[in-house]
Amino acid sequence: MSLKEKALDLHEDNQGKLKVDTKVKVETEDDLSLAYSPGVAEPCLEIKDDREKIFDYTNKSNFVAVVSNGSAVLGLGDIGSEASMPVMEGKSVLFKEFGGVDAFPICLDEEDPDKLIETVKRMATTFGGINLEDIKSPECFYIEKRLKEELDIPVFHDDQHGTAIIVLAGLINSLKLVGKEKEDVRVIVNGAGAAGTSVTKLLLAEGIGEVIVVDKEGAIYEGQDSLTESQEELARLTNPENEKGSLSQVIKGADVFIGVSVAGVLKKEMVRKMADDPIIFPMANPEPEIWPEDAFAAGAKIVGTGRSDYPNQVNNVMAFPGLFRGALDVRAKDINEEMKVAASYALAELVSEEELTADYVIPKPFDERVGPYVAAAVAQAAVESGVARIELDYETELEQAKELMA
Amino acid sequence: MSLKEKALDLHEDNQGKLKVDTKVKVETEDDLSLAYSPGVAEPCLEIKDDREKIFDYTNKSNFVAVVSNGSAVLGLGDIGSEASMPVMEGKSVLFKEFGGVDAFPICLDEEDPDKLIETVKRMATTFGGINLEDIKSPECFYIEKRLKEELDIPVFHDDQHGTAIIVLAGLINSLKLVGKEKEDVRVIVNGAGAAGTSVTKLLLAEGIGEVIVVDKEGAIYEGQDSLTESQEELARLTNPENEKGSLSQVIKGADVFIGVSVAGVLKKEMVRKMADDPIIFPMANPEPEIWPEDAFAAGAKIVGTGRSDYPNQVNNVMAFPGLFRGALDVRAKDINEEMKVAASYALAELVSEEELTADYVIPKPFDERVGPYVAAAVAQAAVESGVARIELDYETELEQAKELMA
Repeated sequence: MSLKEKALDLHEDNQGKLKVDTKVKVETEDDLSLAYSPGVAEPCLEIKDDREKIFDYTNKSNFVAVVSNGSAVLGLGDIGSEASMPVMEGKSVLFKEFGGVDAFPICLDEEDPDKLIETVKRMATTFGGINLEDIKSPECFYIEKRLKEELDIPVFHDDQHGTAIIVLAGLINSLKLVGKEKEDVRVIVNGAGAAGTSVTKLLLAEGIGEVIVVDKEGAIYEGQDSLTESQEELARLTNPENEKGSLSQVIKGADVFIGVSVAGVLKKEMVRKMADDPIIFPMANPEPEIWPEDAFAAGAKIVGTGRSDYPNQVNNVMAFPGLFRGALDVRAKDINEEMKVAASYALAELVSEEELTADYVIPKPFDERVGPYVAAAVAQAAVESGVARIELDYETELEQAKELMA
Repeated sequence: MSLKEKALDLHEDNQGKLKVDTKVKVETEDDLSLAYSPGVAEPCLEIKDDREKIFDYTNKSNFVAVVSNGSAVLGLGDIGSEASMPVMEGKSVLFKEFGGVDAFPICLDEEDPDKLIETVKRMATTFGGINLEDIKSPECFYIEKRLKEELDIPVFHDDQHGTAIIVLAGLINSLKLVGKEKEDVRVIVNGAGAAGTSVTKLLLAEGIGEVIVVDKEGAIYEGQDSLTESQEELARLTNPENEKGSLSQVIKGADVFIGVSVAGVLKKEMVRKMADDPIIFPMANPEPEIWPEDAFAAGAKIVGTGRSDYPNQVNNVMAFPGLFRGALDVRAKDINEEMKVAASYALAELVSEEELTADYVIPKPFDERVGPYVAAAVAQAAVESGVARIELDYETELEQAKELMA
């Protein structure tokens, strides 16, 4: 059977990939009187008097909404909320399997960003976190920004930040391997969409020396004509020398290439122009910006792609489940840059110095240490950066995750 | 331990009563490629080309939203969306345990009816049905009406119709027992709120001879001053002789009293004024309009309350799970009067002629035949009334439910 047939069978046989199940039994009148009327009135009254108690008595403590309007689904484009449902269910499955998070798909038939924001705000009571998914750029930036400001639970647009977190992890280890300092490196980010923007900001937050973002028109620089709002911000934050020119021109002397663009745009001759020991993350999917074989032939030292059939897969299943797990465990009000950077370092640490090679700068998606270790590090960062509501859990978690590692 | 302590412990120990679980495993790269990218693109594309296929490939086929804004929760009043969450979770537990329905609480922080409607419409993609819960009257009528008109999935306000369905079941059997015909009986419905209105309409749909609705001001009649929109409708539909007066006055000669009002309003002397073999459903909770002992002392023949410690409990857990189960099984576009009446008859049939006594006119909530039998009858009614998308399932179901009964 082809992948297509197998995938359709899997979905049709199960009529969806999720189920809602109960944590309490209702087999007798007594059960009924505790889980439902009249006993259920008691937690209601407690929450009425102190709204924070909703975390103690309800599933808000572990519910995450996977929210999409289907406007940029996988590589399929704007296919609408109904056609996006299988992806949102799949994402919810990954939340559960990799992070123990009870995630639920919320597919919204709404294109207007303000109305989408308003809708998510109205339904936020039920959830301890909001994962935005497959919402097109540039609307996704505005939607995430406003929801982060206006809600007191974590809001996270995975398409932006998931890749960024894994790439930063890979870069931390890659720099160790080639013996370069983050302050000294020149990084080219090819692609100025959701992922490219987030990668750029996370690298800058982490103190990377120089970042230049390149899109179809070439390097983005301050003062350039007809920049969008988010490109203007990128121009302001990056490219300190205001360099102009095509990818082929600005890649000269670069230490790192990060591709979040389209297949085949990085040519061998461009790799040859880079600095010594080029680090290359061509993450266009399914076909990368350059095939690893070609990159190595042109002198690349380390290559990581989005593909599972090559080493160093950049797979965001290593980020979002542990990230939300950690945030939920301390009832965080936000997922901030500190928490994302903590997730990157946790991932990087999972590859020990002895294990570190060019083929292993990023842990593997099915490494069972990933979820718990990222969660513990994120919980700690949430507490230390002041966005946690409680702080009791992360130290035990960190211990347990370290035991797993031993 | 008191009920209060037990209830709080149950909720706190579990941090909520639900979990989201997966129907597919993700343990290998292959699993990941089917449940998520790239395989998941296939069902997306199928649904994009034919939106009805969302039922084949996703959980829409079994997901029901339990929607509330917390404006009329249990007997606690308007406690807000957060404090309503334990009830909506409890309701979801009952959906699962009694009907196998994957129900999910959606607590909306929104008092405005139009905005609530708009919000539910935007999120309806995910769900195969909407159960409205604990939304205050009269807004609940408008909200349900508009959502029923504007969505192509079942919308059902349980506070209105759940009780009505069980009461009609009890009444069908009670009339058999006392040997009266439905066309000939005079019924007093005391209480003109959500439940009273729905009981009245269902009784009229079923051809009950005469219904008079009584509220605090007495019998509702056409031309009365300052009626709300829904009371005006009741006045038009009921009380054919336009009788005026208090409960004590209009109850004279009544065959049936249905109380959906407040404790203690039905006095013994009123029961004594009723026709022979009075049938009394005093369903105020936790204290009924009249205690069964007092009703029997005054000559009542049959009494059913909301309480589990007396015979003939009117518990809507016998209605909504099977009702939605049947509706989902045939992918119904609506829950209409035919389906509700079918549920009542199915419930009534579960008490066989040999078993029928004054203490057993309504099945018991934990009778395991209830869910499947109601579901099968409702599925059949959906097909026959033309609101089903598919019709293959109900006959097998009906067979299986009948086997359970044998």
